[in-house]
Formats: sequence, C-alpha cells, structure tokens
Amino acid sequence: MNKRVEPPRLGEPYLLTPGPLTTSFKVKQAMLRDWGSWDADFRQMTAELRARLVAMLGDGGEAYDCVPLQGSGTFIVEAMLGSLVPRNGKVLVLANGAYGKRAAHTLACLGRKYVLLDKGDYLPPRGVEVAEALAADDKITHVVAIHCETSSGILNPLAEISEATYAFGRKLLIDSMSAFGAIPVEPAKIRFEALVSSANKCIEGVPGFGFALVRRSELEEASGNSHSLSLDLHAQWRHMNETGQWRFTPPTHVVSAFLQALTEHREEGGVAARGARYARNRDLLVTGMRGLGFETLLNERWLSPIIVTFFSPADPAFSFDRFYDLMKARGFIIYPGKLTVVESFRIGCIGQMDEAVMHEVVRAARACLDEMGVGSAAPSDTALEERARLGAA
Amino acid sequence: MNKRVEPPRLGEPYLLTPGPLTTSFKVKQAMLRDWGSWDADFRQMTAELRARLVAMLGDGGEAYDCVPLQGSGTFIVEAMLGSLVPRNGKVLVLANGAYGKRAAHTLACLGRKYVLLDKGDYLPPRGVEVAEALAADDKITHVVAIHCETSSGILNPLAEISEATYAFGRKLLIDSMSAFGAIPVEPAKIRFEALVSSANKCIEGVPGFGFALVRRSELEEASGNSHSLSLDLHAQWRHMNETGQWRFTPPTHVVSAFLQALTEHREEGGVAARGARYARNRDLLVTGMRGLGFETLLNERWLSPIIVTFFSPADPAFSFDRFYDLMKARGFIIYPGKLTVVESFRIGCIGQMDEAVMHEVVRAARACLDEMGVGSAAPSDTALEERARLGAA
Ligand SMILES: Cc1ncc(COP(=O)(O)O)c(C=O)c1O
Ligand SMILES: Cc1ncc(COP(=O)(O)O)c(C=O)c1O
Repeated sequence: MNKRVEPPRLGEPYLLTPGPLTTSFKVKQAMLRDWGSWDADFRQMTAELRARLVAMLGDGGEAYDCVPLQGSGTFIVEAMLGSLVPRNGKVLVLANGAYGKRAAHTLACLGRKYVLLDKGDYLPPRGVEVAEALAADDKITHVVAIHCETSSGILNPLAEISEATYAFGRKLLIDSMSAFGAIPVEPAKIRFEALVSSANKCIEGVPGFGFALVRRSELEEASGNSHSLSLDLHAQWRHMNETGQWRFTPPTHVVSAFLQALTEHREEGGVAARGARYARNRDLLVTGMRGLGFETLLNERWLSPIIVTFFSPADPAFSFDRFYDLMKARGFIIYPGKLTVVESFRIGCIGQMDEAVMHEVVRAARACLDEMGVGSAAPSDTALEERARLGAA
Repeated sequence: MNKRVEPPRLGEPYLLTPGPLTTSFKVKQAMLRDWGSWDADFRQMTAELRARLVAMLGDGGEAYDCVPLQGSGTFIVEAMLGSLVPRNGKVLVLANGAYGKRAAHTLACLGRKYVLLDKGDYLPPRGVEVAEALAADDKITHVVAIHCETSSGILNPLAEISEATYAFGRKLLIDSMSAFGAIPVEPAKIRFEALVSSANKCIEGVPGFGFALVRRSELEEASGNSHSLSLDLHAQWRHMNETGQWRFTPPTHVVSAFLQALTEHREEGGVAARGARYARNRDLLVTGMRGLGFETLLNERWLSPIIVTFFSPADPAFSFDRFYDLMKARGFIIYPGKLTVVESFRIGCIGQMDEAVMHEVVRAARACLDEMGVGSAAPSDTALEERARLGAA
C-alpha cells in the first residue's frame, strides 16, 4: 500500500523534529469531541489501543501486554525503570547520547544501583562490550539500551546487545521511543523484557502519553517495586485489566488522535512500510544535503531513518539561529544539535512527510545558505576528526 | 459578561462528570495544528499559560509562580508532595473521601511521614480539629487539604484550615483540582504555599497536564527533594525559567486548547462568573432532582458548585447501570458514586453547560425513572441516617 502524505494546513510549517512532529489532519480532527473517561466507549478505545500496539510487535508478541501511561516519553522510561527493576537490582546503562545519560540520571534519582557504559556522543555500544561488562559484574540484573539515540540519530545494534545480555542471563529493557513503529523489534528475533515508546513519534500521533510493551510475567512480578504512585506500571496494568480504565484521568483527545494514527499506520502498510518511507526521506535528505556540501556525523552503517545529524558549516557566515529562522520562514522547523564537542544541527525524517517534502527541504537549505552568504557548507576539521573516530567503532 | 455556552456537536453526549468534561468546540479546534515544542511560538504559549494562571490567583498572587507538568491531576499532586515536602518532613493529611486518601497513599509510596485525619466519606475537617492535631505533634511540617473533595462534592473549609495551619507555623498545600478557576483561592485571603489543579476541570480545557501555583520561595528551596526525575517541580520550574521550554516533551495540542479555554474563561468574566454559572447549574439541578424525590448527600452548607452526590433511590426497580445507560441514550453521561456505605451517583455541574442544559438533565432523569418503573426516588433509611450524622459536623 502506498498512502500519500498530506501537507499541513493553515500555512503551518513542517516539523522536521523528532516529535512532536507533523501529523495528518485526520489525526488532529479525531480530537474534535469529548469523551467520558469512565464510559464504555472510551474503555473500548483503550482496549483497542493496547491490542494494536501489542500486535505491532509481530512474532512472539503474544507474551507481552501494553501499558499506556500519561505524561511524556521520559515518564514512561522512568516508570519502566522504577517498576521493572527491583529495588535491589542493578542496571547496566548503555549510553551514547542524551537519552542514555538520562536513563542513568533517572536511576540515580530513584536510588537504584547502576553502572554506566558511556560511549560519548555517538559511538555505538557493541555486543562484546556488553558481554565484558556483564562478565565483570554478576550483580547486574538488567541492561538498558536506547534503540535510536535521538540526540545523534544513531541506530544502536539491539540484536547483538540482546544476545550478550541473555547469554549472561540478564534482562533487557529498551527505550525505543523514537524508533518503535518504524523499525521492527520482533520478540521472536530480539529478546527483551520491555520496551517503551510514546504517542508522538513514529506512529505519528500527538504528544500526551507513552506506552510500555512488557512481558506479562515481568508485569506480574513488578508489584511493589515502584518508587512512585503515578509511575507504577504494575498498578496501571492491573487496574486496566480489571476495569478497562486508566488508573487516573487519561488524555482522552490524545488517545483518540492516536487511534486514528494507528489506523493510518496500518493503512500505510505497518512497520515495514512506515520504516521504508522514512528511509526514503533520509536517503533523499542525506544525498541532497551532501550535494550542498554538508556532512553527516554518522556514516551509512549507523544512520537511522529517524533523524540525521549534520555538522554545522565551518564558514563563519553560518549561524544556527539564523539558519533556523530562515528555514522556518520557508516552512520548515529544524532541530538544534546535541553534540558536546562540535557544532551540529538535526533534521528529522519522521512524520507526515515524503520525498517531495524532503526535496523542498534541501532546496530551502540551499536558499538559506545563499541568503546567509555561506560559501561552503563544509564542516570544521575538528568535526571531521571527530567523525574519523567513528571509523573505529 | 455573559457568554452563552455551546451545545456539543456531532450528536455527542454532555459529560456531567468532574473532568474530562464538555469543552467548547473552539477549545477543541485549537488542537487542529502541530507545534514544535522547541520553537519560539510554543515557548510564547507556555509563558502566556503560566502568567495567566498566576493572574487567576488574584490579590497576593505576585509571590507565586506557575509550574505546569505533563500527566494527569494525580501526577501534579504527587509532584507537589514529593517536591515541596522535604524528605524529613511530616504531613498532616485531611481526608474526607477518595482524593484525601490518595494523597496519604502517595506519601506512603514516597516514604514520607504523615498522619491522617480521616473524616470518612464526607464530613468536613474543621479548623479546630486541625489545630488539635498540630498542637499534638510538633513534627508535622505541612498540612494537605482537598479543596473540593470530588468524591462527595463537599467544599472543604479552606479558610479555617489555613488559619489553624499558620497559627501553628506549619505550611499548607492544597489540592484544588476540581475547584480552581471557579472558586477563588486568593492568597491575600487564604494563606498557602502551593495549590495544584489540572487542565480539564473548571478552566474547561482537555486533559493532558496539571499545574502547580507555588510560592516562589518554596520552589527555590525544593531542590533535591523529589523522589522522581519526571515529577520534580523544582527542576521543571528552573528549566522553564531558564529556557522557556518544558523539561520534557509537552502535550502541545492540549496546551493550545488550554490557552483557548483560558481566553473563554476571561471572556466569561473570570473566576467569579465561572463560579456563578456553575452555582446556577447546581441550584437548578438540585432543586429539579429534589422535585423528583431525589435527596442530596450534603446539605446546603457544604454543597459545592462542582459536583453533586445524590442517593440512589431505595426502590428495587432502580439500578445505576440501567440509569446510566438510559441517561446516556438521552445525551447525558453521569458519574458513579464513591461512597462506601450507601449507594449513590454523581452529577457534575462543570463544563460547557448552563441552566437550560441542567433543565434537560432533570427532565431526562424523570423520563429514565419512568422507563425503569421506579415509583419513588426516595433513598433508603440508611442513607438518611448517614446524612443525619452530617448535621453534627
Ligand atoms: C530515545 C528517546 N528517549 C526518551 C525521550 C524522551 O521523551 P520525552 O521528550 O517525550 O519525555 C526521547 C525524546 O525524544 C527520545 O528520543
Ligand atoms: C480533588 C481531586 N484530586 C485529584 C484528582 C486526580 O486527578 P486525575 O484523575 O486527573 O489524576 C481529582 C480528579 O478528579 C480530583 O477531583
């Protein structure tokens, strides 16, 4: 199936950001009514949402249940860590960017023991490194991995991380916030206990809740682990299964929008088709931007179809703030970089966008460079040296 | 100013519930576009939201700042307790229903010390009782009060609770979830350190975030108190003040709807006018239902303009589930009761509804009784005895 994406209405810009992103008009229109959260109609909507997300896992998904939770993505990550890691557990956190570090910071807040394998801004944590870390510390009970580390756009090697984790009899928890729905995580192929994502990423809903897909046996064992009332996945799960309702007031309109987004996801052809569109977006974007002289942080092997980091041009005429404003005036909202060593910016490939849109993005970027008087989009030598380090990964 | 309320469209029912509630169509239409959460336009929306909520406090509001937080109302209550009560603090929780008990349960989850003054299903905690409890225990640092205890609809006597609290040099934290925006809580008249409410109550927005109005000096002192990363009010506040952004992805559409709701709140005439409309709704509802033979749990003195608890008729022909379905078929979603001793149900007076709507509610209730073959709407003797206990309050 090949569904055409819709341009945004009302002259609003495209969001080339990793969520909130540009959603279809129908997704937003699904918010034009009010639901009683106690009512059977809404309970039915919740049941459908949960079932469809479990189905999205594919082969081996039968062992998992879906627990949606109010709040942003960080809330569901915290809920997963606080609810599924027992108080006497110990976590190996695989970090190569902001979200891996945030997972570690969350564990620190919660008073849970952890060790950090920090690969810096973008180098991938490899299976052998995980194996070494686990061999060295048999107190470690869980490994936390970031699927797509959105701060650089790197797609981490989940399969080898999972293999190493279970080879040592430990449990894998995945933050697949920015990847789930576009990149398959089939339990039959990649073993894990839980993954989390949120409404406003690759399923193209609007922000307001996250969800966890958790092996049912883990949910059963999770009673009493949580440090928080609101963020207790076990309690939310039990309550939902018993009553069909969310434990506390759900974001009803956001849920309704999400159901429409799920329908469009299915109509487009599911995870494979969604991922393929994003990959085409990325390919066109990367080729086009390279054609203008820009360089990507990552080489092909690690480049995700979610978001791409470009080095800022070394030319002193380039200023990110100016570039941002000029791109916005042309109808495109881009995203600042998150690298610590070199200047960069990011462009997202997800949301209601296709190759025609990405083509316009590249044209707009060229026009902005011209307007700023940037002669060359080539990055600094430091940037290129940084990237050379990645060759060793 | 007297703004007419709008009937819901698309044949959807009125939500006679304490939130999510019936919102105006314009509020929902404000969700028909996507915003980048990093973008200056959205930062401006956040700034406006915070400023308008502080302004709603009225006299003495200058000392307070507004901290919105993703999630439902329970999340912001938990954030207030976890962030503002130091780890070695001790809380007196004033409970007369589900939400007071939930505050206590939250403190238990967090491992904070507390004592519970539990008045049962609906009796109000009085100033003298607070004074006694505080006199008896000088370890108590904070008092938590529920403004309108939504499980019965009782409007608790905040002024005398506040007086007693500060007479003993303790600090007051208020859960004004279902009252703020319709019942004034002017700091110049009622002293308190923080109050919390949420988007989908008397301001008539859609659900997706809560907010705290906190004395700035308390926010400053709150660093490091929180048990949670996501629910840390101090960190959210500092980040917002430094960057103009929410710390984690905000529910952008819900925020946009809320700004429209704030505009309509102002156009209606602010807190006083909103409260007056709700009071008229309640008066018409109560008079009409009493005319049908129904009895309210509470007498006039404690009856809030937010939600009213009615005893279920003793007549065995009455069944709440049937009544619910019949009322829904007539376009009205009502709410189950939460009393532990006697059967009851609740009807909300808040949302886009006026006296004409309440008139229809009463007509519908009469038709439903007829259809069920309920001869008399009078409650059981047990119910009346229960209510007699309230006379002593
Ligand atoms: C990998 C990853 N984890 C966690 C988050 C946090 O989500 P949120 O901003 O909704 O709290 C994000 C947000 O982009 C993310 O990409
Ligand atoms: C007084 C009070 N406190 C707390 C809450 C909890 O809010 P939520 O259901 O949004 O979590 C409610 C909800 O109605 C309430 O009325």
